[in-house]
Amino acid sequence: MSKNRLEAFSDGVIAIIITIMVLEMKPPHSDSLAALKPVIPVFFSYILSFIYIAIYWNNHHHMLSAVQHVNGVILWANLHLLFWLSLFPFVTAWSGENNFSAVPIALYGVVLFMAGTAYYLLTHALIRHHGHDSPLAKAIGTDVKGKVSLVLYGSAIPLAFVNRWIAFSLYCLVALMWIIPDRRIEKTVTN
Amino acid sequence: MSKNRLEAFSDGVIAIIITIMVLEMKPPHSDSLAALKPVIPVFFSYILSFIYIAIYWNNHHHMLSAVQHVNGVILWANLHLLFWLSLFPFVTAWSGENNFSAVPIALYGVVLFMAGTAYYLLTHALIRHHGHDSPLAKAIGTDVKGKVSLVLYGSAIPLAFVNRWIAFSLYCLVALMWIIPDRRIEKTVTN
Amino acid sequence: MSKNRLEAFSDGVIAIIITIMVLEMKPPHSDSLAALKPVIPVFFSYILSFIYIAIYWNNHHHMLSAVQHVNGVILWANLHLLFWLSLFPFVTAWSGENNFSAVPIALYGVVLFMAGTAYYLLTHALIRHHGHDSPLAKAIGTDVKGKVSLVLYGSAIPLAFVNRWIAFSLYCLVALMWIIPDRRIEKTVTN
Amino acid sequence: MSKNRLEAFSDGVIAIIITIMVLEMKPPHSDSLAALKPVIPVFFSYILSFIYIAIYWNNHHHMLSAVQHVNGVILWANLHLLFWLSLFPFVTAWSGENNFSAVPIALYGVVLFMAGTAYYLLTHALIRHHGHDSPLAKAIGTDVKGKVSLVLYGSAIPLAFVNRWIAFSLYCLVALMWIIPDRRIEKTVTN
Repeated sequence: MSKNRLEAFSDGVIAIIITIMVLEMKPPHSDSLAALKPVIPVFFSYILSFIYIAIYWNNHHHMLSAVQHVNGVILWANLHLLFWLSLFPFVTAWSGENNFSAVPIALYGVVLFMAGTAYYLLTHALIRHHGHDSPLAKAIGTDVKGKVSLVLYGSAIPLAFVNRWIAFSLYCLVALMWIIPDRRIEKTVTN
Repeated sequence: MSKNRLEAFSDGVIAIIITIMVLEMKPPHSDSLAALKPVIPVFFSYILSFIYIAIYWNNHHHMLSAVQHVNGVILWANLHLLFWLSLFPFVTAWSGENNFSAVPIALYGVVLFMAGTAYYLLTHALIRHHGHDSPLAKAIGTDVKGKVSLVLYGSAIPLAFVNRWIAFSLYCLVALMWIIPDRRIEKTVTN
Repeated sequence: MSKNRLEAFSDGVIAIIITIMVLEMKPPHSDSLAALKPVIPVFFSYILSFIYIAIYWNNHHHMLSAVQHVNGVILWANLHLLFWLSLFPFVTAWSGENNFSAVPIALYGVVLFMAGTAYYLLTHALIRHHGHDSPLAKAIGTDVKGKVSLVLYGSAIPLAFVNRWIAFSLYCLVALMWIIPDRRIEKTVTN
Repeated sequence: MSKNRLEAFSDGVIAIIITIMVLEMKPPHSDSLAALKPVIPVFFSYILSFIYIAIYWNNHHHMLSAVQHVNGVILWANLHLLFWLSLFPFVTAWSGENNFSAVPIALYGVVLFMAGTAYYLLTHALIRHHGHDSPLAKAIGTDVKGKVSLVLYGSAIPLAFVNRWIAFSLYCLVALMWIIPDRRIEKTVTN
């Protein structure tokens, strides 16, 4: 089984997820500016999810470029990641339509946490297969950002019930952490 | 007509099927945890279908990697398989929304049975074209797992009317049979 | 501009069209076998459209394999074809949901006719660009089947108002004409 | 990070956007010709958006063919463009369903303006990375058409509140400007 297949299939699924999410943003029936008001939170949750899926696509590709061969465990670890990513349209719509109220925004966090965990499991399946001295293992490194993200998602879930905006801000913070150019941050954090 | 075209088109269709299925999982209107309750069976039927489509993608690619050339019969046998796979979103939604009640879960079994049959017809079109001594024919072998799957799907359809969970369990059993690493099982079954 | 781009983009769009059509087949709310009854005509119109899109994909690829270079006119002729193909999900749903009644089935014919015309325009843009002595021009030949199809679609549109099944049968006839292996028919027709 | 990845992902997303837009054109419940009447404006807004997305796909590919390498800024500039393109299905549906009334058609213009701006930012990120003497910078040139388009979109937004058809006509005009073969126009404009 070749790595290219895995890459092309993952790219296809991620491109579809990022695009069909917009179908959850239903155009209002009336044509006034006021009719757009309930769409605004859906729009913001769409932006956030678009950024997250884009980050996953970016990191996934970056990691796979160092991969040399895949096995059955890696294949299923990758499908497991795609499964959690595929739930983004659902939680995006539910959070947005309910103006980020506690339960939906907490569930959004659960999906973020599970996708993050699935990514972590995938990196470890890849490292186990390529060896701890492989260029891949070095490229992944200690993965401080990945672990910090999991802690922040995990904290945001209960905090959503205290105040929805704490959870929302934490999700934005993690996204920002990944958008800002990697190398500098990684240097700062690991030094 | 090249094999690559067939492979790329099939990969595209399978990637779309596995992803649009999630659109059938409609976010509830209310924002309470209780509102998620009717979504739970849809979620489980989504998981099952996701795994099935993933297994088909995996096996399809595995088989095509041994294929050298295709003809018109193979092309249509492959489209016939894609047709039945494309019905997964429909039966997934219907089964899930009705908590796996008898008729929907039996229809799910019909689609599984037809997809399995279509896969069987595709393997035979490929073997006929490549010869019974080809590496492809050897790679497919006696295909015990494929035949056992068809028998289990065929049994599950009437059993759905006795108890829905018998049918559901049989579908899970077949999926598990395919996820567990191939070689070992095949050795056990064929010895 | 390379031919590969055009091919990959067309393949992507066609794969998406053939797959999202199934979203128009809505699962019934009730879980009885009787509840499936209104879905049956939608299912049949889905089968017909699936076959048509598959035929277009097949012929499109066959033709492009003989193409060497493309220009702006070819690009837009191809997009024009994709536009009419993209209307299949709409007419499939409308025809199926209304049990192939006169107006919807006539509109289905209009889309078939326009897609056929767009395909004809694309072949001519390609021949003009490659020359009438090119292998491409020879591969396309007199295109009797294409012209007969247009006549049959054109006849089916008014005949839909006499009896819906005449139109439906004509559409099935044209589809059959394209599925049956090309060479033999072409020999019979052109001799 | 390779350019091919960026190209393949963008192509995938654009192919999906252009195709799922048709899902916003809902088939009417009744089967009469009159029932199609409210669909007509949606059909015209679909045609316009189809042409716009096709133009973006075309220009995007044309530009990327001269690109040699990409960096993080280019990656995010490209995702920013895809984000605004992904909003086409929403504004297409809203404009069409409301027969191009003022607010929806103005919002359509906002999305056109933002997509145009995102494209402009992408070209500048590319030029900055490749140098002002690169073949890419020469291929892009002064980009008069791009700037004129932005001015026309920007004018159409307030004019939509004077008369919806002024805005609609301006959008059609810009689309026409891009469809008509590039070289001749560019020569005329830059000379």
